[in-house]
Amino acid sequence: MTPRPAPAWRTTTDWLNTPETLTLERLRGKVILLHAFQMLCPGCVARGIPQAQRVAEVFAGAPLVVVGLHTVFEHHEAMKLESLRAFLHEYRVRFPVGVDAPGEGGDPIPRTMRAYAMQGTPTTVLIDAQGRLRRQLFGVHDDLQLGAELQTLLLEAHTGQASAAQRPTTQVLPAAGCDDSGCAVPSDAAQG
Amino acid sequence: MTPRPAPAWRTTTDWLNTPETLTLERLRGKVILLHAFQMLCPGCVARGIPQAQRVAEVFAGAPLVVVGLHTVFEHHEAMKLESLRAFLHEYRVRFPVGVDAPGEGGDPIPRTMRAYAMQGTPTTVLIDAQGRLRRQLFGVHDDLQLGAELQTLLLEAHTGQASAAQRPTTQVLPAAGCDDSGCAVPSDAAQG
Amino acid sequence: MTPRPAPAWRTTTDWLNTPETLTLERLRGKVILLHAFQMLCPGCVARGIPQAQRVAEVFAGAPLVVVGLHTVFEHHEAMKLESLRAFLHEYRVRFPVGVDAPGEGGDPIPRTMRAYAMQGTPTTVLIDAQGRLRRQLFGVHDDLQLGAELQTLLLEAHTGQASAAQRPTTQVLPAAGCDDSGCAVPSDAAQG
Amino acid sequence: MTPRPAPAWRTTTDWLNTPETLTLERLRGKVILLHAFQMLCPGCVARGIPQAQRVAEVFAGAPLVVVGLHTVFEHHEAMKLESLRAFLHEYRVRFPVGVDAPGEGGDPIPRTMRAYAMQGTPTTVLIDAQGRLRRQLFGVHDDLQLGAELQTLLLEAHTGQASAAQRPTTQVLPAAGCDDSGCAVPSDAAQG
Repeated sequence: MTPRPAPAWRTTTDWLNTPETLTLERLRGKVILLHAFQMLCPGCVARGIPQAQRVAEVFAGAPLVVVGLHTVFEHHEAMKLESLRAFLHEYRVRFPVGVDAPGEGGDPIPRTMRAYAMQGTPTTVLIDAQGRLRRQLFGVHDDLQLGAELQTLLLEAHTGQASAAQRPTTQVLPAAGCDDSGCAVPSDAAQG
Repeated sequence: MTPRPAPAWRTTTDWLNTPETLTLERLRGKVILLHAFQMLCPGCVARGIPQAQRVAEVFAGAPLVVVGLHTVFEHHEAMKLESLRAFLHEYRVRFPVGVDAPGEGGDPIPRTMRAYAMQGTPTTVLIDAQGRLRRQLFGVHDDLQLGAELQTLLLEAHTGQASAAQRPTTQVLPAAGCDDSGCAVPSDAAQG
Repeated sequence: MTPRPAPAWRTTTDWLNTPETLTLERLRGKVILLHAFQMLCPGCVARGIPQAQRVAEVFAGAPLVVVGLHTVFEHHEAMKLESLRAFLHEYRVRFPVGVDAPGEGGDPIPRTMRAYAMQGTPTTVLIDAQGRLRRQLFGVHDDLQLGAELQTLLLEAHTGQASAAQRPTTQVLPAAGCDDSGCAVPSDAAQG
Repeated sequence: MTPRPAPAWRTTTDWLNTPETLTLERLRGKVILLHAFQMLCPGCVARGIPQAQRVAEVFAGAPLVVVGLHTVFEHHEAMKLESLRAFLHEYRVRFPVGVDAPGEGGDPIPRTMRAYAMQGTPTTVLIDAQGRLRRQLFGVHDDLQLGAELQTLLLEAHTGQASAAQRPTTQVLPAAGCDDSGCAVPSDAAQG
């Protein structure tokens, strides 16, 4: 199946954590992880947003951007801009977040969410460096799988920049003896 | 830095979960995740082995094999073959596991562990389809990072077979309304 | 130290999940767990509120009530009644929740929170059947400890009603063989 | 139902983490949490033993003892004394552990396990200060419930010694601002 161009983002002028409005055009040349969420969606808060934050950390040196999209489709009055701003502050979300534009003609589903035909939140969308929609997934995504998919798009981009594979940023090392992360060889035995 | 060939595995004749002795030569053409562990290493039990099991599941359709290596460097009497066999049974470890050969001349470190200069357990080793050592990591490895690294090696192998990126095997879908995995758009609103 | 009467609750008229305004007088004769939280406090969402929900379940048959208190001391505009209502719905919080009255004279700390000199959220307060303040704890409380403290107050109340100790409501039973919860004796061996 | 005396422990002479053989008689006057486990039972390792360890910590000042019982009913050759000893060392189990005596006449179920009619591992048994069996539970037990049950037995014992309710040993305090454990009131606002 030939990948199609990702639909344009129909956000309002409200973007948080960034001085400028982000568009697919501006981000061309980079792999994009678009994370659609609602601030009162328990699965987004417990699992989706933390995963997006970890992607931003693990792939910090790669030509990849994590973009949040606040796609409110219920309790609209409860999740206005002021609440979202406080939410991002308290949960230490640092990546840029755009607010999806309200649905047209009474549609409860906001416009970008509708354009992508998302089934709910969280939804993770992967867009390649050419702006094509390569993957869209509703619900919680496995980390191993997501890491593999992101790497595929990064390697395709042929950028020559360091990708995650060379950056052991998140290793947890055991202390001497055994602890929760493992067992270290005693230093005298290590010499051989 | 040019990758060097991975050292040969110096296992005893004891292999579990497989009818045959595995060697690097036999596995040439496949990406290998070698997971070195001890059955009484808490970090291996809680985190390392479950990660290796998930890799085996997520990459089930790819030319990739997960191989365990029991590298006992302390409490040798406590982790003999009979205990290991029961351990693999109770923890439902299905991938093949070789027993590393005891160190020579009183060396407490077993031979393969010594040949790879492992610092302890768990240690994760990635070997490419040409049998070259590409990554060795002591301690707990981040899933996103590991997924990316495995995918790099799989894409290099040019096998044309399906890799993990096309196999959404591990997604968790929200039920109607909101649950721990997310919030679904009501079916009437989904129509637009 | 002689316990002192718990300060009165200075809530607004807004109570959720209950048709009536709750007061210490109305609840006299019951042990009270008062859980003070903010809907945008990550520690409350991840740990405090789930603990209060479990207390309500485990002690369902005992003369004990769990009462929430929304004590907003920052981002006031972000956590108004409409947002709180949606939050309780999405997180399936069923216990009654009162909204603490805004601080007087520009005080950012709401009134009940000030009267109890709470240090932040989450704060767990235990009040005995005579309306006396017996315990106040800021931060995350250990379940074993909390269970013990609640039982002390319940036994003091001499009600004769079933308390938690007789109600094994939350046990997880292993299936046949071994699983994550344990290992069952095979049925033939169980006969002896 | 009148509580009956707990059956005697039929352990071999092998006790670990204690210089002496423990019996119900020796421990009379103290509340006992008897934790029956197998070192290769995944649910025991992941959940049962950590819970017993936390009980020992939280109730450290109370007249309560945590006693482990190694009740092997399968893979007997895999879990001999030498393996158990290494297991206790690596998992930092500090409480005394007795080895249940092998079943008689070919019975795979060891003797104490048979005397208590345990259904598998983990099994948690609560014995009061008078040596009576008050609770026996197969599988994973809820912490709140267990804390309440232990406190009931401690209060019955009328010892006058400090029980857990006065010992806030396990609280996690939020740092300034919000973190995973909660949100602290800023110090200037705290003054009122």
